[in-house]
Amino acid sequence: MDLKELYDKLKDYMGKEIILKGWIRNHRKQKEFGFIDFSDGTCFKHIQIVYDNTLEDFDEIQKYHIGSTIEVRGIPIKSEGKGQEIEIKAQNIKLLGDCPEDYPIQAKRHSMEFLREQAYLRPRTNLFQATFRIRSIAAMAIHTYFQERGYVYVHSPLITANDGEGAGEMFQVTTLDLEKLSDKKIDYTKDFYGKKVGLTVTGQLEAEAFATAFKKTYTFGPTFRAENSNTKTHASEFWMIEPEISFCDLNELMDIEEDMLKFIVNYVLEHAKDEMEFLDKFVEKGLIDKLTKLVNSKFTRITHEEVITILKNSKQKFEFTPEYGEDIAKEHEKYITEYFNGPVFITNWPKDIKAFYMKLNDDNKTVAAVDLEVPGAGELMGGSQREEDYDKLLNRMKEMKISEKGLEWYLNLRKYGTCVHSGFGMGFERLLIYLTGVENIRDVIPFPRTPGNCDF
Amino acid sequence: MDLKELYDKLKDYMGKEIILKGWIRNHRKQKEFGFIDFSDGTCFKHIQIVYDNTLEDFDEIQKYHIGSTIEVRGIPIKSEGKGQEIEIKAQNIKLLGDCPEDYPIQAKRHSMEFLREQAYLRPRTNLFQATFRIRSIAAMAIHTYFQERGYVYVHSPLITANDGEGAGEMFQVTTLDLEKLSDKKIDYTKDFYGKKVGLTVTGQLEAEAFATAFKKTYTFGPTFRAENSNTKTHASEFWMIEPEISFCDLNELMDIEEDMLKFIVNYVLEHAKDEMEFLDKFVEKGLIDKLTKLVNSKFTRITHEEVITILKNSKQKFEFTPEYGEDIAKEHEKYITEYFNGPVFITNWPKDIKAFYMKLNDDNKTVAAVDLEVPGAGELMGGSQREEDYDKLLNRMKEMKISEKGLEWYLNLRKYGTCVHSGFGMGFERLLIYLTGVENIRDVIPFPRTPGNCDF
Repeated sequence: MDLKELYDKLKDYMGKEIILKGWIRNHRKQKEFGFIDFSDGTCFKHIQIVYDNTLEDFDEIQKYHIGSTIEVRGIPIKSEGKGQEIEIKAQNIKLLGDCPEDYPIQAKRHSMEFLREQAYLRPRTNLFQATFRIRSIAAMAIHTYFQERGYVYVHSPLITANDGEGAGEMFQVTTLDLEKLSDKKIDYTKDFYGKKVGLTVTGQLEAEAFATAFKKTYTFGPTFRAENSNTKTHASEFWMIEPEISFCDLNELMDIEEDMLKFIVNYVLEHAKDEMEFLDKFVEKGLIDKLTKLVNSKFTRITHEEVITILKNSKQKFEFTPEYGEDIAKEHEKYITEYFNGPVFITNWPKDIKAFYMKLNDDNKTVAAVDLEVPGAGELMGGSQREEDYDKLLNRMKEMKISEKGLEWYLNLRKYGTCVHSGFGMGFERLLIYLTGVENIRDVIPFPRTPGNCDF
Repeated sequence: MDLKELYDKLKDYMGKEIILKGWIRNHRKQKEFGFIDFSDGTCFKHIQIVYDNTLEDFDEIQKYHIGSTIEVRGIPIKSEGKGQEIEIKAQNIKLLGDCPEDYPIQAKRHSMEFLREQAYLRPRTNLFQATFRIRSIAAMAIHTYFQERGYVYVHSPLITANDGEGAGEMFQVTTLDLEKLSDKKIDYTKDFYGKKVGLTVTGQLEAEAFATAFKKTYTFGPTFRAENSNTKTHASEFWMIEPEISFCDLNELMDIEEDMLKFIVNYVLEHAKDEMEFLDKFVEKGLIDKLTKLVNSKFTRITHEEVITILKNSKQKFEFTPEYGEDIAKEHEKYITEYFNGPVFITNWPKDIKAFYMKLNDDNKTVAAVDLEVPGAGELMGGSQREEDYDKLLNRMKEMKISEKGLEWYLNLRKYGTCVHSGFGMGFERLLIYLTGVENIRDVIPFPRTPGNCDF
């Protein structure tokens, strides 16, 4: 049976013989007794297995190594020891799979760097049991939120000829034999798709097309960035959630962002209690309080211009001087969320620092964009009302030197029954960093990809 | 309001003024009346908007084109016309977004080929409204099935140096400037990851690592195959579901496969009633009966050897002669599912035609693999017990000339606390073809990628 079932229905199983299969996380031996810290991975909690020298193969069992796979037949009883309420009194412990003493995950503290090198084994540790189960639960929270509200889940294509953000930094995808290329002009008609293609940086453009058919849509899939950044927040492969909604303006978009985030946080707090308590205790003190506070707060809504004014009027000494018409720095984000003591939607950004598809405001200087700044997380979501006017969009593309080639269909969405519509993007890993308190993006992705790192 | 809400709470809204925003799917004009076939994409059903010449801008409204975006203020009333029970008596119809007459999606039958060229607009047609909403609902069914049963959702990496199936046919991913490569040896230390990498063909190997930590895991993500096949069932980018379960043998795996498939089918039948009725009527006659029959059937379990015997004993004239120790052809699959009049699990396949990681049976000739053959769908899932013995796995890799390089970690899963474990893969699009009756994989993927095709 699963350990989770035992804990869920403890009353039914107390005093009755059960069988568990799982792994030895730790093993303490005494002359007449042994104590195995046992986990089968079905829940965060472990259980203590107690065995004594009345067992026929007592000597054999005492030799079982940490990391080994065992089958335990025994009886759940009240524990007299400290640290647990119940334990299993073993009647029989069978070795299913040995684990030699060079096993890298011994019962001690390992550095995060070391565990990254052992990415295939690290899910067996408490920290990554918590993190990756929360990753799974948070993914379900997102699907639940959107599906319950009638959104259609769209799988945007991964291989694409579009550069959706106009930012460059795309991986190229090819079946050409690089060894046989000469330094002449490449003949892309011989490549798999007959042209130069790469890995998508966003699923938004395709989601917009679906929003003109289903009204409410969302993507949840991988995106890629060939950016040579070695920071705690950059990975070259990560998952994004990109909802797109027709007949939705910037204000309604903020309503959705706030509602969704609170839903996800509540869902995780409810479905990952043990994991959150562990993280609160060992990773980020006050984590649960932080999240509970978020859920109960009203998010502030303020324009970029107002933000700059607040920053300028502050007596704070900033490394970068805040300026109207310019982007804001991390230190400014931090100041603003502290100033309002909670999450802040910053709207109406200078057009020159935002993407071509964002709706131009009547002032002709700003766009109807919104970034959500969250205390302790920075920018958690970025969204905008999309430019729904064909001519204005075309004009912005020309101004920003975005080629129309390959984007004619995207422009046509504004020709064939256009409508006010908005959407946002949320980096899944950024959300997880916020939810778990784990600081480095490499530690919330099962097998992270960063410059120079593509193992497993 | 959403049209879905109107239909869901019809009684509350009858006779009361409401506002709808959406698109004109068709427009019939009479001298004193007009009839607009209206959809907002929130449900499969459309609604008829009736307006008459008492409206001030009657003449203007009569000019509204198919595909245009409108806002309708009106009252839901019982319809006297044929084909619908209720309709909206319009008080006001505002044009939000025009649609010129060159709009490709007119209210007539279009060929599938034509609609593929208009992939960004085709979700607005009935067929693709049904198909892509079912795609979304089926995805939710899958997540619901696994999450309710305690499985952990794993995002396997997309960019990888492994060739998980040992089949070749991978796309290469690079940031090297191809234009500047000479025909000398490529220096991969200068590539983004410092080595040659490509797009994954399976998430299984990484899922196996997680199964040794969480016991029950599943992936649901994109996989890629650079196979130059132009058939109805091949795409170069598709989504796969790959569950991996520790302490699970081949028989238990078949239990899970059968249970999961029935759950998904029931979920879709329940959550996509209108869509399924449409498909049953216009795409595959008897579709709902086919699916209902599946849900109520007991799947047959039979070995590959027994299958060959049945085929040999049949009086059927096959194009390919069935042989012990060899693969079976599509015509054989078809014969077998008809023979048993239902889904058939075929187990214990000849080792030489299966992947290196499958568990070698004691006969040393077959592996503990299982394919699920479903009437009208062919092979819907492929799975196996995985080889859990280090030496046997290493031996198979050597026999099949699979390089250990880069797979040391995968082998080590058999060294550090190995256990009996099994998993299977299901192509999401193959499932959708079965669920919808839509025949071509290009028509169940939002923006399909096939050789020579990478538009949008």
